Amino acid sequence: MTSLDVPSRMPARVPTPRPGDPRLARLSLNQRTTANWTLAEAIEGSVRAGIGSIGVWREPLAEVGLEAGKRMLDDAGLRVSSVCRGGFFTDPATFYDALETNRAAIDETAFLGAETLVLVAGGLPAGSRDVVAARDRVIQAIALLVPYARERGVNLSIEPMHPIFAADRGVISTLGQALGIAERFDPADVGVVVDTFHVWWDPEVLPQIQRAAGRISSYQVCEWITPLPPDALLSRGMMGDGHIDFATLTAAVAAAGYTGDVEVEIFNADVWAADGDAVVGTLARRYVELVQPYL
Amino acid sequence: MTSLDVPSRMPARVPTPRPGDPRLARLSLNQRTTANWTLAEAIEGSVRAGIGSIGVWREPLAEVGLEAGKRMLDDAGLRVSSVCRGGFFTDPATFYDALETNRAAIDETAFLGAETLVLVAGGLPAGSRDVVAARDRVIQAIALLVPYARERGVNLSIEPMHPIFAADRGVISTLGQALGIAERFDPADVGVVVDTFHVWWDPEVLPQIQRAAGRISSYQVCEWITPLPPDALLSRGMMGDGHIDFATLTAAVAAAGYTGDVEVEIFNADVWAADGDAVVGTLARRYVELVQPYL
Repeated sequence: MTSLDVPSRMPARVPTPRPGDPRLARLSLNQRTTANWTLAEAIEGSVRAGIGSIGVWREPLAEVGLEAGKRMLDDAGLRVSSVCRGGFFTDPATFYDALETNRAAIDETAFLGAETLVLVAGGLPAGSRDVVAARDRVIQAIALLVPYARERGVNLSIEPMHPIFAADRGVISTLGQALGIAERFDPADVGVVVDTFHVWWDPEVLPQIQRAAGRISSYQVCEWITPLPPDALLSRGMMGDGHIDFATLTAAVAAAGYTGDVEVEIFNADVWAADGDAVVGTLARRYVELVQPYL
Repeated sequence: MTSLDVPSRMPARVPTPRPGDPRLARLSLNQRTTANWTLAEAIEGSVRAGIGSIGVWREPLAEVGLEAGKRMLDDAGLRVSSVCRGGFFTDPATFYDALETNRAAIDETAFLGAETLVLVAGGLPAGSRDVVAARDRVIQAIALLVPYARERGVNLSIEPMHPIFAADRGVISTLGQALGIAERFDPADVGVVVDTFHVWWDPEVLPQIQRAAGRISSYQVCEWITPLPPDALLSRGMMGDGHIDFATLTAAVAAAGYTGDVEVEIFNADVWAADGDAVVGTLARRYVELVQPYL
């Protein structure tokens, strides 16, 4: 109880939950949190820690091959809480290539027996200042992909991204905006991802989570820390190290009827440089302290 | 025409407007753009460039003293488009001190004959995760300050800040949220600042600018650039170097009836390190190319 958490500087305030602890039942390790682990290592690390679910990224999955990857996941008895990721629809020069890539991502999601494909919209095309047009292309792309995804039982899950990423990564910037798109479709076909890092600041976040009832296909947690690390893409922190009110947001997501897994997804150079098992231990402690009680 | 702009890498596409050029009539130099200039230097630099208005910061004003500063501004014939800044209301430990500081800022604004005091809300108090409470304190503070400001003819101008600053600088994150506060008061007493850097990403920005008709007390321009510079506070760019659609935003502000000055406010280490006159020349060129035609 007096040891420091890794990679945080905050002392551990709760013991590491042991495998089989019922509080871990809905915890999922998003692979990007332990970015230096292969899929096999992430699976083994999750099992060692008693985490029963994993958010799979396509690139490390491709390294072992789809069929081998599925066998490894099945052998370990892990659920796949989401596949990351589809999207990147905003550049007219690559629009049809992006649709093809997304169909492949839908196929992989279905093959893994997962339901949720996370969509990151994409940023402004090079040289463009037309965020309205970029947002329109996201809607068009989703409309074109829905029939394909529906046939395969895959939910296209729009992830609104923090406005810090609006220019270069994700032009869908608020939960309300994501819902405005998702609501054009059946909830079984198009959902939304609620990631605390992306939405915590939004003055409308609580009513929008309520509005999202029946549409939340993934709940992801990570922290907004200050000072913000220099690389915006790697600026996410370990829950508890920053400013986000996980109790309120988690309770709102639960009140909206979400019963799925809770992914911890942290892009952070310090987290990536730390020992994977230590990171998983820390996030499990923080999760049972800060998130799980409010589910 | 073939020389590079400073500190941008983009070649100058229009000649530097000369003093007396009518297109400069509404341009204002926010002092923070030439942060290494004293007030005297900023006044002289503005006059050399033919810029007739200035956004004054309290700290460099205090360095010369209020009365001397006013004399310098009057002698130069410069308008004061805004005083920066009041606010920082969110910490209960310093709430009443902040009110005192804001009353002093109101006094200075009135003494300079200016109408607009820019309010930056402030971030989360140390250790707090309660952004709702922080936002409530902003409303309380403004309500307490309005009678004092009204007596002195000063408009309390709420500046919504980009969500990148929600934790540590400004918990008012959208124009809609700022308007929701401002609309509790008379438009002469409480207005809003539209700064392109802070609002460009917002999917609701155009309807909210329309809603702001009669409430816009300052229009500030600067650019969102990528990759985002490592220090978030100094991440603003020169217009034209990034992703913001100045034409659309400026036309919307004009359509909302805004007839005031347009401040260029750029927090950026490269801009600050560059020669002040070169920066002012560049911003004047960019302004007449990218902003002024849409006013």
